Amino acid sequence: MLVILEAGADDSVVAQVVERIEQLGLKAHVSRGEFRTIIGAIGEEKAAFPEQLLSLQGVENVVPIMKPYKLASREFHHADSQVAVGGVKIGAGRAALIAGPCAVEDRASCLAIAECVKKQGANLLRGGAFKPRTSPYSFQGLGRQGLEILAECRERFGLPIVTEVTDPRNVELVSEYADMLQVGARNMQNFVLLAEVGKAGKPVLLKRGPSSTVTEWLMSAEYILSEGNRQVVLCERGSRGFETEVRFSLDVSAIALAKHDSHLPVIVDPSHAAGRREVVIPLALAGLAAGADGLIVEVHLCPEQAQCDGPQALTEAMFAELMGQVKRVLAIMGKASG
Amino acid sequence: MLVILEAGADDSVVAQVVERIEQLGLKAHVSRGEFRTIIGAIGEEKAAFPEQLLSLQGVENVVPIMKPYKLASREFHHADSQVAVGGVKIGAGRAALIAGPCAVEDRASCLAIAECVKKQGANLLRGGAFKPRTSPYSFQGLGRQGLEILAECRERFGLPIVTEVTDPRNVELVSEYADMLQVGARNMQNFVLLAEVGKAGKPVLLKRGPSSTVTEWLMSAEYILSEGNRQVVLCERGSRGFETEVRFSLDVSAIALAKHDSHLPVIVDPSHAAGRREVVIPLALAGLAAGADGLIVEVHLCPEQAQCDGPQALTEAMFAELMGQVKRVLAIMGKASG
Amino acid sequence: MLVILEAGADDSVVAQVVERIEQLGLKAHVSRGEFRTIIGAIGEEKAAFPEQLLSLQGVENVVPIMKPYKLASREFHHADSQVAVGGVKIGAGRAALIAGPCAVEDRASCLAIAECVKKQGANLLRGGAFKPRTSPYSFQGLGRQGLEILAECRERFGLPIVTEVTDPRNVELVSEYADMLQVGARNMQNFVLLAEVGKAGKPVLLKRGPSSTVTEWLMSAEYILSEGNRQVVLCERGSRGFETEVRFSLDVSAIALAKHDSHLPVIVDPSHAAGRREVVIPLALAGLAAGADGLIVEVHLCPEQAQCDGPQALTEAMFAELMGQVKRVLAIMGKASG
Amino acid sequence: MLVILEAGADDSVVAQVVERIEQLGLKAHVSRGEFRTIIGAIGEEKAAFPEQLLSLQGVENVVPIMKPYKLASREFHHADSQVAVGGVKIGAGRAALIAGPCAVEDRASCLAIAECVKKQGANLLRGGAFKPRTSPYSFQGLGRQGLEILAECRERFGLPIVTEVTDPRNVELVSEYADMLQVGARNMQNFVLLAEVGKAGKPVLLKRGPSSTVTEWLMSAEYILSEGNRQVVLCERGSRGFETEVRFSLDVSAIALAKHDSHLPVIVDPSHAAGRREVVIPLALAGLAAGADGLIVEVHLCPEQAQCDGPQALTEAMFAELMGQVKRVLAIMGKASG
Repeated sequence: MLVILEAGADDSVVAQVVERIEQLGLKAHVSRGEFRTIIGAIGEEKAAFPEQLLSLQGVENVVPIMKPYKLASREFHHADSQVAVGGVKIGAGRAALIAGPCAVEDRASCLAIAECVKKQGANLLRGGAFKPRTSPYSFQGLGRQGLEILAECRERFGLPIVTEVTDPRNVELVSEYADMLQVGARNMQNFVLLAEVGKAGKPVLLKRGPSSTVTEWLMSAEYILSEGNRQVVLCERGSRGFETEVRFSLDVSAIALAKHDSHLPVIVDPSHAAGRREVVIPLALAGLAAGADGLIVEVHLCPEQAQCDGPQALTEAMFAELMGQVKRVLAIMGKASG
Repeated sequence: MLVILEAGADDSVVAQVVERIEQLGLKAHVSRGEFRTIIGAIGEEKAAFPEQLLSLQGVENVVPIMKPYKLASREFHHADSQVAVGGVKIGAGRAALIAGPCAVEDRASCLAIAECVKKQGANLLRGGAFKPRTSPYSFQGLGRQGLEILAECRERFGLPIVTEVTDPRNVELVSEYADMLQVGARNMQNFVLLAEVGKAGKPVLLKRGPSSTVTEWLMSAEYILSEGNRQVVLCERGSRGFETEVRFSLDVSAIALAKHDSHLPVIVDPSHAAGRREVVIPLALAGLAAGADGLIVEVHLCPEQAQCDGPQALTEAMFAELMGQVKRVLAIMGKASG
Repeated sequence: MLVILEAGADDSVVAQVVERIEQLGLKAHVSRGEFRTIIGAIGEEKAAFPEQLLSLQGVENVVPIMKPYKLASREFHHADSQVAVGGVKIGAGRAALIAGPCAVEDRASCLAIAECVKKQGANLLRGGAFKPRTSPYSFQGLGRQGLEILAECRERFGLPIVTEVTDPRNVELVSEYADMLQVGARNMQNFVLLAEVGKAGKPVLLKRGPSSTVTEWLMSAEYILSEGNRQVVLCERGSRGFETEVRFSLDVSAIALAKHDSHLPVIVDPSHAAGRREVVIPLALAGLAAGADGLIVEVHLCPEQAQCDGPQALTEAMFAELMGQVKRVLAIMGKASG
Repeated sequence: MLVILEAGADDSVVAQVVERIEQLGLKAHVSRGEFRTIIGAIGEEKAAFPEQLLSLQGVENVVPIMKPYKLASREFHHADSQVAVGGVKIGAGRAALIAGPCAVEDRASCLAIAECVKKQGANLLRGGAFKPRTSPYSFQGLGRQGLEILAECRERFGLPIVTEVTDPRNVELVSEYADMLQVGARNMQNFVLLAEVGKAGKPVLLKRGPSSTVTEWLMSAEYILSEGNRQVVLCERGSRGFETEVRFSLDVSAIALAKHDSHLPVIVDPSHAAGRREVVIPLALAGLAAGADGLIVEVHLCPEQAQCDGPQALTEAMFAELMGQVKRVLAIMGKASG
């Protein structure tokens, strides 16, 4: 850390800061400039240190030097990681192509969608059994019954299952059925849930919260990694912004930065960002061109009957068109379907 | 709802939209304008209807007319609500003056802070026993021991306790000790937790998420209210923004809008918005002047030793100064300490 | 427009709104629903009408139906437009590949950069002679001398010139030298400047302001178009956001939406969005995959000597790498260098 | 500045950075930590230096220590400044109470509004003669005729005039009539205009751009100050945000931070932030409680006839109510009408 003192800070301020730095088990290195005195604090930065030093009188600012995450960082693990989900590989040259309905609504429609996405080249099936909904009056998912339908789809079409878990008390239940546990954007900083999926031993898909920085996202990944679960895939699905023509603003820099700062695979969810199918395809391709290791999209054979998110669901024809383009972009990026 | 058709939508589109509206149990009212045809859907709007109609071919946009929340709305309950927390009243002319440490760190410091804030005029004590921290390596709170220390402070100084609950499995435990359950900003859309505190029968302090609209905030309140718990107090604590000199941008319009759209009491948390004590006092007064029914602030007698959020904690002198100004502003706004 | 009345609005409110609608030269169409009365205002919506109706007592909301722009819209001109800049075509299948220094700093470095970007496949040369700088103490550009250097580069390497104009009094001067006038992001709503470049009869590159919606962007294009200048190319260069690891958040949805709502060509500027060269390439490719008709990037042969924006300038090696990938992505998107 | 090297940077990197620092006329001070080497660059930081050092190979980050503005800073001028506008004082205990129509629409209505706001206690009159409008099809103001009407209002009611200038070619014309030149939010970084009003020798009201940081705002003030014009008043009028119930999010932290970092007076514009009159009063009071040295509000006697911004204009009754509350809040803040 670098501790920048206020202009005109005198020797007693310097002495107090140095004393506190040494109390924290670090070495202090004082550098007097023309306009400001800077004190370097040399040694391992613990999470609480910057705030504690910033609270001292006469301190103007504290600049941490180290990233606050470790296991998620490229410094810790230089090469791209790869996560395997029921035989499908994600990262390090292999792409997740996840598709399916927003929510599992009933057996027939879910089977039909699974068959469709399999035929068009998806390698993993998504579908929500426990749905986090903005309104208490909206459809909340079929729960265990939804998981059973997903399991049947896996049997029939050979697609491993990605499904969301929202309650730490349900992690065990969902783990019985799912091949990959999804933590939704609204739960990205639900640290209790993160710790629980960290213990579950299943691959985790961690969505970025709509106003989270890349560092905060990687800190949430660190919660899972530090429980011993190294199978984490990141997913960008849009920032909350001022544009009213889309639900969220897909943040392709978050994808590029996460790939730069971390070794974890990153995929893109264009459906929740767009909120309307007309722009799902360009956003999906943009995410892949920014470096994403795959995508997760919503598909529905009859969007106007969907219990949720119908406007953003791709029809079969649009999904087929998307998959054609996806293959070409992945080839350019040097990646193949997982 | 109003369903706006695309330019040039023909009679078959109109017929399909009308049919679907009637299937949903509503009456359709077609109005052909010079440039667009609009179809009104008359009757009760269910949460899924707008999306389902928007998914129909030839539909350009759907405009909901009703607010998506009910129990939280001023239409449902016109007069300001009042919530009582261990004898302290909040709302309808009475103000919460909540102060205390960010986290309960140890018995001695917590007792000292409680004594200080009581002396300066606080009417409720805050303090975290379960802390949601961005980093898994940060201090996570003392848990049950922290709750016991808070209870001792209540005994000694007669201050009811507000403390955060982060895990649905802990709602019962925290309810044993706390007078008011706090749901933090990061958990505003943790619907599992909202339902659980809705069942707990304790007053709830619901912070606004850093990128949540006022409508989404009131929808989260609706989760609690619809479980039968009518004792909800809202708390604004800042939006995620682009200014790097503060942690969050305190959103006084959110306060004014929540007071306009809802009957629920609203308070302001200037500490988490500011992130640095120099601007806590102006933000606190701004929140009250915007109509807030009280405030919640962090106080620490020795901020440079704090385990979390030291830079934003007010010292005793600053808290005393704040309380002097608060009383004057509340008087202008026609409010008294709860 | 649709005028939504407040709950419980009585007949006198309805009568007043109808009267005002008719005063504005429109026809009123009243529709009484279960919870709200809606009045359709049929006829041409002028810009001031929605606000005037919203100001009437008893009116809860006004919903415009028409887009507020005309000449920029796809409804007005269905097919993709193409703009020619000194022989280079942009839009409708042809891509602008604009590269060059941030600012023209001196003759030698500018000639060297122009030679380099030409060799690597750029078809237009960028370079600032009049620089809008955040600080009055920063290098403000060489002015006319910079324009002369750019003109020499055009002579030598056959690259038409794109350069910024910041002052309505300089539009004539800049037009003498430039093949395309750039209006910077900070001037997107400098309506005085927009009108002046609208009269200049030169192609215009209009950057999106960092907090402008797509509709506001197209309204600014409309200022230029409505002066009779139809040669407008849009350029996305990032939204102001909360992520501190990049300067701006490249908004690929703005590209997809602008292509959806307008016939005008759209290009992407990944350099100003990124602010650091490590993420320029992924952002450039993401913009093209989202549908952009080309790109504009900063290149410098010696970034550490640059007078401005050195950290985001690509080196020759990086620019060569980028151009290789760009060709492949454009091929997939069915586009060729303009 | 502090130059932070990448992990593992070797002696040759250190040598190159030191050499470059010395070329820039600064002294280098190397400090080798456990994980990173830091090089302090001691001496005056010029605007281009951080970027140039950041562009060097092996440099991870550069941390400037000095604020990039000088004349606007509290370090340069410690006490609150006061600006006099036609006899009315703003800052250092005196408050601007500026009111009037959005635009001057005609002589009669403007005189009537001026009479009204004078009677209710305003000390300055606002009104636009040159209007920056999002749409080229909207009313653009009466120009010189509007200025003449404003001058007549000043004659009749003794209210000095604040009016916007949007074109550098009109600064002289507007200065003939106005007592204070307003630079609108969209022109905050129109540096050409800033330089021109800096030369005009009239007090300037500088609005904050909707996505500008406080530092960028003060840099724009620096443009005016560095031309020799020290009569600058800042005005906060809202950030672009995600809440759709208001036009902009009033940013009270920007007020508190500007008062903290600068000696210049700061006022609040609640009208443009709100966009709807129901929340103008709470936002106005919030701005004053955050430390603003006055306000600027829109008033119209017949908002439903207004050519622009009718929905946010206060009626006479609301303005009277506001002024009553304003006096009480100013008294608490130790301020009096200018």
